[in-house]
Amino acid sequence: MVRWQPGTRERLQATALQLFTEHGYDETTVAEIAAAADVTERTFFRHFVDKREVLFAGQDDFVGMFTGPVTDAPAGTPPFTLVRRALDSAAGFFPDDRRAWSRSRQRVIDGVPALGERELGKLANLKVHLGTSLRTHGIGEPAATIAAETAVTVFHLSFAQWIADGEDRDFATIVHERLEALTEVVHPAS
Amino acid sequence: MVRWQPGTRERLQATALQLFTEHGYDETTVAEIAAAADVTERTFFRHFVDKREVLFAGQDDFVGMFTGPVTDAPAGTPPFTLVRRALDSAAGFFPDDRRAWSRSRQRVIDGVPALGERELGKLANLKVHLGTSLRTHGIGEPAATIAAETAVTVFHLSFAQWIADGEDRDFATIVHERLEALTEVVHPAS
Repeated sequence: MVRWQPGTRERLQATALQLFTEHGYDETTVAEIAAAADVTERTFFRHFVDKREVLFAGQDDFVGMFTGPVTDAPAGTPPFTLVRRALDSAAGFFPDDRRAWSRSRQRVIDGVPALGERELGKLANLKVHLGTSLRTHGIGEPAATIAAETAVTVFHLSFAQWIADGEDRDFATIVHERLEALTEVVHPAS
Repeated sequence: MVRWQPGTRERLQATALQLFTEHGYDETTVAEIAAAADVTERTFFRHFVDKREVLFAGQDDFVGMFTGPVTDAPAGTPPFTLVRRALDSAAGFFPDDRRAWSRSRQRVIDGVPALGERELGKLANLKVHLGTSLRTHGIGEPAATIAAETAVTVFHLSFAQWIADGEDRDFATIVHERLEALTEVVHPAS
């Protein structure tokens, strides 16, 4: 069930997720994860500061997926175009062969309040970084913050739908559906 | 500095905030809060399940400020109109004489990661309730969820501005400025 596991870091993440799923998050120790992945605890802690982080690593790359297209866009690009590009780029982080892993991960997170709160904290961090990129790109306030918050909200809702039971459309399709819904809410066609 | 303190519950909140501000959140015990407010610990726990909740109480009333206008609106009211009404209603929760208390409270929350995460959790809960109200009102998906998330985002950003240093405009004025920025940012794909 849990595929997508090249290097040590990824093997630790896959192993940890499997143990969390089978035995529970609180019941699984770092020592058990390391042993099951055939590495030392020391190696585990070289990759992750604590047990929680094994579910949240890769955050820097992820933030870069959002902010890169903003930084690279020509001056004068309207904020909503930047939002669309950031989201299209972020969609690349979620190929179909990652969906099973993401579903299992979310099930673990949803069962442990402290993990849910950490997840919200990570999304808040993403909003801050994206807002900074937009301001650096010349978008004023409050538009930059509004645009960053909106982008992360659309991302978060798209992710929830992408891992929903029975959903098999790709991430970008789901993102576009939500962007259209937002546009329709804010500017009704009639 | 800390005014707005009628009944026991409010007195406990004002006292707790003062102690948190003066001595630190982690350094202040429930026993100290109760003693300073001239009640027993038992009384404290009749009002708040734990020390954290003294900063987050009143959440039910607060959620009702958002959802009430949605529930009361005539059938067929467009979602963005419902969002505006919910936000105008919520603005009533933040009269000017509450601003000093809200500023002090936020300073305590910002200094303690667990409190920041609890705050995000409360906002997430508000989104869920508002989304339910919108769906009950006949708004479909994904529009209902998008509208609820957008409303809470605008609220959250407005609140941050309302308590910003030097800000003295009223809550509703700040909300309207952000709704306008959102309207300006969001555009159909060209």
